[in-house]
Amino acid sequence: MWDSLATGANTVPQLHLDPDRALPPDPATRELARTVYAQTRSLPLLCMHGHVDAALLADDTPFGDPAGMLITPDHYVTRLIHAAGVPLEALGVGTPDPDSRAIWRTFCANWRLFRGTPSRYWLTHELVDVFGVDTAPSEATADQLYDELTARLAEPAFRPRALFERFGIEVLATTDSPLDDLDAHARLAADGWGSRVIPTFRPDALVHLARPSWIADVAALAKRADVATDDYDGYLTALRARRQAFIAAGALATDHGHESADTTPLSDAEARRVYAAALAGQVTPADAAAFAGHMLFQMAAMSCEDGLVMQLHPGVLRDHNDEAHRRYGPDRGFDIPVAVEFTRSLRPLLQSFGRHPALRLILFTVDETVHTRELAPLAGVYPAVRLGAPWWFLDSPDGLRRFRAAVTETAGFYNTAGFVDDTRAFASIPARHDLARRIDAGHLAGLVAGGLLDLDEAVETAVDLAYTIPREVYARPAG
Amino acid sequence: MWDSLATGANTVPQLHLDPDRALPPDPATRELARTVYAQTRSLPLLCMHGHVDAALLADDTPFGDPAGMLITPDHYVTRLIHAAGVPLEALGVGTPDPDSRAIWRTFCANWRLFRGTPSRYWLTHELVDVFGVDTAPSEATADQLYDELTARLAEPAFRPRALFERFGIEVLATTDSPLDDLDAHARLAADGWGSRVIPTFRPDALVHLARPSWIADVAALAKRADVATDDYDGYLTALRARRQAFIAAGALATDHGHESADTTPLSDAEARRVYAAALAGQVTPADAAAFAGHMLFQMAAMSCEDGLVMQLHPGVLRDHNDEAHRRYGPDRGFDIPVAVEFTRSLRPLLQSFGRHPALRLILFTVDETVHTRELAPLAGVYPAVRLGAPWWFLDSPDGLRRFRAAVTETAGFYNTAGFVDDTRAFASIPARHDLARRIDAGHLAGLVAGGLLDLDEAVETAVDLAYTIPREVYARPAG
Amino acid sequence: MWDSLATGANTVPQLHLDPDRALPPDPATRELARTVYAQTRSLPLLCMHGHVDAALLADDTPFGDPAGMLITPDHYVTRLIHAAGVPLEALGVGTPDPDSRAIWRTFCANWRLFRGTPSRYWLTHELVDVFGVDTAPSEATADQLYDELTARLAEPAFRPRALFERFGIEVLATTDSPLDDLDAHARLAADGWGSRVIPTFRPDALVHLARPSWIADVAALAKRADVATDDYDGYLTALRARRQAFIAAGALATDHGHESADTTPLSDAEARRVYAAALAGQVTPADAAAFAGHMLFQMAAMSCEDGLVMQLHPGVLRDHNDEAHRRYGPDRGFDIPVAVEFTRSLRPLLQSFGRHPALRLILFTVDETVHTRELAPLAGVYPAVRLGAPWWFLDSPDGLRRFRAAVTETAGFYNTAGFVDDTRAFASIPARHDLARRIDAGHLAGLVAGGLLDLDEAVETAVDLAYTIPREVYARPAG
Repeated sequence: MWDSLATGANTVPQLHLDPDRALPPDPATRELARTVYAQTRSLPLLCMHGHVDAALLADDTPFGDPAGMLITPDHYVTRLIHAAGVPLEALGVGTPDPDSRAIWRTFCANWRLFRGTPSRYWLTHELVDVFGVDTAPSEATADQLYDELTARLAEPAFRPRALFERFGIEVLATTDSPLDDLDAHARLAADGWGSRVIPTFRPDALVHLARPSWIADVAALAKRADVATDDYDGYLTALRARRQAFIAAGALATDHGHESADTTPLSDAEARRVYAAALAGQVTPADAAAFAGHMLFQMAAMSCEDGLVMQLHPGVLRDHNDEAHRRYGPDRGFDIPVAVEFTRSLRPLLQSFGRHPALRLILFTVDETVHTRELAPLAGVYPAVRLGAPWWFLDSPDGLRRFRAAVTETAGFYNTAGFVDDTRAFASIPARHDLARRIDAGHLAGLVAGGLLDLDEAVETAVDLAYTIPREVYARPAG
Repeated sequence: MWDSLATGANTVPQLHLDPDRALPPDPATRELARTVYAQTRSLPLLCMHGHVDAALLADDTPFGDPAGMLITPDHYVTRLIHAAGVPLEALGVGTPDPDSRAIWRTFCANWRLFRGTPSRYWLTHELVDVFGVDTAPSEATADQLYDELTARLAEPAFRPRALFERFGIEVLATTDSPLDDLDAHARLAADGWGSRVIPTFRPDALVHLARPSWIADVAALAKRADVATDDYDGYLTALRARRQAFIAAGALATDHGHESADTTPLSDAEARRVYAAALAGQVTPADAAAFAGHMLFQMAAMSCEDGLVMQLHPGVLRDHNDEAHRRYGPDRGFDIPVAVEFTRSLRPLLQSFGRHPALRLILFTVDETVHTRELAPLAGVYPAVRLGAPWWFLDSPDGLRRFRAAVTETAGFYNTAGFVDDTRAFASIPARHDLARRIDAGHLAGLVAGGLLDLDEAVETAVDLAYTIPREVYARPAG
Repeated sequence: MWDSLATGANTVPQLHLDPDRALPPDPATRELARTVYAQTRSLPLLCMHGHVDAALLADDTPFGDPAGMLITPDHYVTRLIHAAGVPLEALGVGTPDPDSRAIWRTFCANWRLFRGTPSRYWLTHELVDVFGVDTAPSEATADQLYDELTARLAEPAFRPRALFERFGIEVLATTDSPLDDLDAHARLAADGWGSRVIPTFRPDALVHLARPSWIADVAALAKRADVATDDYDGYLTALRARRQAFIAAGALATDHGHESADTTPLSDAEARRVYAAALAGQVTPADAAAFAGHMLFQMAAMSCEDGLVMQLHPGVLRDHNDEAHRRYGPDRGFDIPVAVEFTRSLRPLLQSFGRHPALRLILFTVDETVHTRELAPLAGVYPAVRLGAPWWFLDSPDGLRRFRAAVTETAGFYNTAGFVDDTRAFASIPARHDLARRIDAGHLAGLVAGGLLDLDEAVETAVDLAYTIPREVYARPAG
């Protein structure tokens, strides 16, 4: 039964990119949106929160095969095909020696599953605009497409740095562990790419004491920072040292993925006690959770000192399925959001630093209920707080629309951080920025059509959201 | 004061069904929606989750009077009139010998209360399309309407089976207790209607140990299943036996209404202990709640064995008002939703069975906040999970629209179960399916108008949502 | 960096009020909306829940300067400028001797921050429609605007009572402590304004036992009511006496701002114990919270006796930032919503009084998730319950739209309380009512355009929402 859905013949022959895609349907509003979009479509791309591997650009080796580039590493793609009953192994996930052409055929046969999803939008954009291919994926066209894409990927113009240039990326931030030696970034700097590809400091593994690898990780931190981490004070010193190393390598920001947004600080004595217990392998789950919240507070304090922008992405239960985690590893589509709370959770941090002139704290959520209720009111009064762009599943036409509709009336446009993409799919970066610019153009056009904003203000705001605001929010503080 | 609202003169003379009702307002999008809708409007109706009494069709006796058919049993109608200050008794609820004409007059005088509600939509559809009446209800027209409807209901064409045929229903699932002898279904089968009207296994009364009738119910279960239920193992065996009896009578699915979505299994020893305590009349509320969650886990295990589709409807606090419950019984509009949680609650079940090839688990919610946050991410990765159609209050134009807008980008169309109505108002069935087809046509037309989907894909998807998907999701597994 | 955002040149030269502002963009729907709006735009304004100071109208002294009228007291305005990094002191907040012209310049230089917010909408309406000014605020125009507005405010036509008449306000309810002597209302009554400006009984300070001023407040209550409050029974008697004094002064309603919606009653003995402990300065936080819930129950009981409409505004954590509270006092933008629960919390109250013919309970929320899930189902069945208009941050174009879209299908229009504004910004009152009428016209036009309602019904409903319903909901019970 599932087979008929999963492999049915797909009769759509051509892909095309409608020049008005994702703009509002009403003709007068659409015309206004076109005017606004025309002013932002060619602006450079600021990619301040990416998950592309810096080595990809440092090495600049060709991507290889279509499945290895577009399918297997993209959990947005593999999860939906898996949900239709296809084993992840058939998509190259957890397979030591994947058959790229077979994976590609499976993807093409399941093209219909992506209708209405942003993956469909991104993949279409990539095929047409990045690869110049206009055949729609289907069982019948899979091999032809595979051959065409393979040929393209062998061309110099499709190597990572060439695509980076073609995409008009101005800055690409990667996400990196404090344990990372930043060698790829050093090699990029040596090639003159140091300010174009920058690291981001993501200490999650080191602040969650109950992770199995934590004891080994703080030992590695000591080595990397050349600071003993056998007590809590040394641990803080080592983290500060790594933040400085990241800043020296061009980092502008930190990134924090926590299940909760709790920021309650512990006393120094309590923090020392919990840290010591964790080193002894005896931390309780409650103490580990409290320590994670405490460390968000500490990270804000350090950001006030060193000027790194703080990005917080709470509210996701990672690795929902243990068996899938064992077989396939993390980031395979089994991270599922949970309800999140910000008002009370962030209060300790904001009491201490929310009006500190040096802090910029960017808040992201996959629980949309907090947009009007908590995040927009917080961002609308605390100078330190900015609202991050729709993240994860919400980086989509309706997700982006709902974000603007939910937060703008309470927080305005200028308490957001502008558009920030969040992807490990390198080729999808232009599609994501382009989509955000279209949605923002449509939202602003709606305000103009509704008599709530003048067109020149709409254009200026669109440029600010696409470029000016993120450039300023993530800038190093003067002095 | 309330009187002037409740009984004010209503000057609307005619009812009419706009051929474009519930389609998008933008002319170009509406034209696309018409094209899509034209391909689904005449498809047969699959009614996989109904609350119509099987005896109605087994007996095929005439419906009787208009109030007894359209008003008194429909708590969507009676609740809104009650909320305006009219006693439920005036609508025949809790009245041993109701005055049908007086009830009808009260309804007509309160017609304005239904503006903007799906009841208005369904009732208009029923009056115009099912009964061929085009006079709008009002104090002035109440008697004339009553007489017209009474005359229609006396015609053979308005008996239940004739309407069933006229509505184009292919399958109607009823909802039945494991204690039910399925006699009505047997009589239908004897008339050749066995595959058209099928039972659904709903064991709620038997898994909630704290219900006052539970001890009597498990005794009745023993008798019905011919299996002793004086211990937990016998109880499971009896439930398995009844599931087999339902399958033999054509059942395709189970249905579960729980306040929470918890699915944490107990150990066998713990389950036996709690069951024994309940039989002794000594179960604690906490143990009863834990046992209910445990039984959802058990039901999923049994579905993996016997192939019954599992439907879960959590998140409703039943019988919010004790006095109303005592006077009027259940299902009178006093069931009120509460916040619900799926990510953590379903985790035990999905860890064990979420990737099991034999399980299909359809999740319904009246808490819309979980659509983007939890349900779409779960359905977008677990092969077993499908999203149920908007349920209860949400089976409405805006409710259906919000559902598609919320879940499609993350889960696509093919991780939903297609349209499933949920009604005890037999005459409203065609209106409900028709409305869902209109809203889906509008949603798909919006994607086409926005350049995100091709028209032929939109048409195919609309047919899949209306017919192909529910037929496949609820199909018996091969072999 | 922040400076460039906060003080950038603003090139928009003119303000204008689009006659179709906030109406739907689709031309056919807009035309219908115009027809509906034309019937409500000139209706009198019923302002049943305001925060204007009665002394303003009793004294009828001129407003003074533009910043003192429009900027400093309006925390919607000051918070957004503060969020851009401007100290609140620069806006006159917490400043003993503010420089009005400098404040006005700072506001004008930050005009862009309000794009897309209701403050922008209200301020534009006030400048153009109330003050007859059409120069857009900017650094360049600040002084000219300041001088124009100052000149206007010196005219007799801009004194409070003249504006009240010009605005077409029929009734303005203020919000008053039980400790208030209602002197301003007495003076208004002496001038024949007694039925035009009425008090509202807001006992929050007296029912939250843990507030630092509580012991002094109940002592003051005893004095004001001339009833000893040294035990719980006297306290209730004193509250009853003040309710009667308010009723004598024209009050129609009570108002209750609680963090939670809990309404669980305590036993008399328990209430007496907690009250006594509080008087002794020894109440626990848990007891204080329980007592607040208990008092909501008591207030409902008293409303059943004396006919005051009960308004409940739960779900806000007041004074999120202690330092800002110390420096600037309450109501400065640092009140942040939290998730709220109604179904279980209101159950005790609704079990006892939800079907009582004398109770009208109007529920407001800033947590929009409860609209479809809890509030509309409760209002759709309990005769006592009405849904309040979107409140606080949600009194905005999209906020008002979402409210109608969320609640109407489940509760209809006639279980709402119609439009109720909630402002301390006197000059914004007409803009707020006008906006609500536009949004309701648009919503109703959408139903007509979608074939779901007839135009004459839409017009009647719009008039009911704007005027008839609030007049009836807040009316004194006959007899």
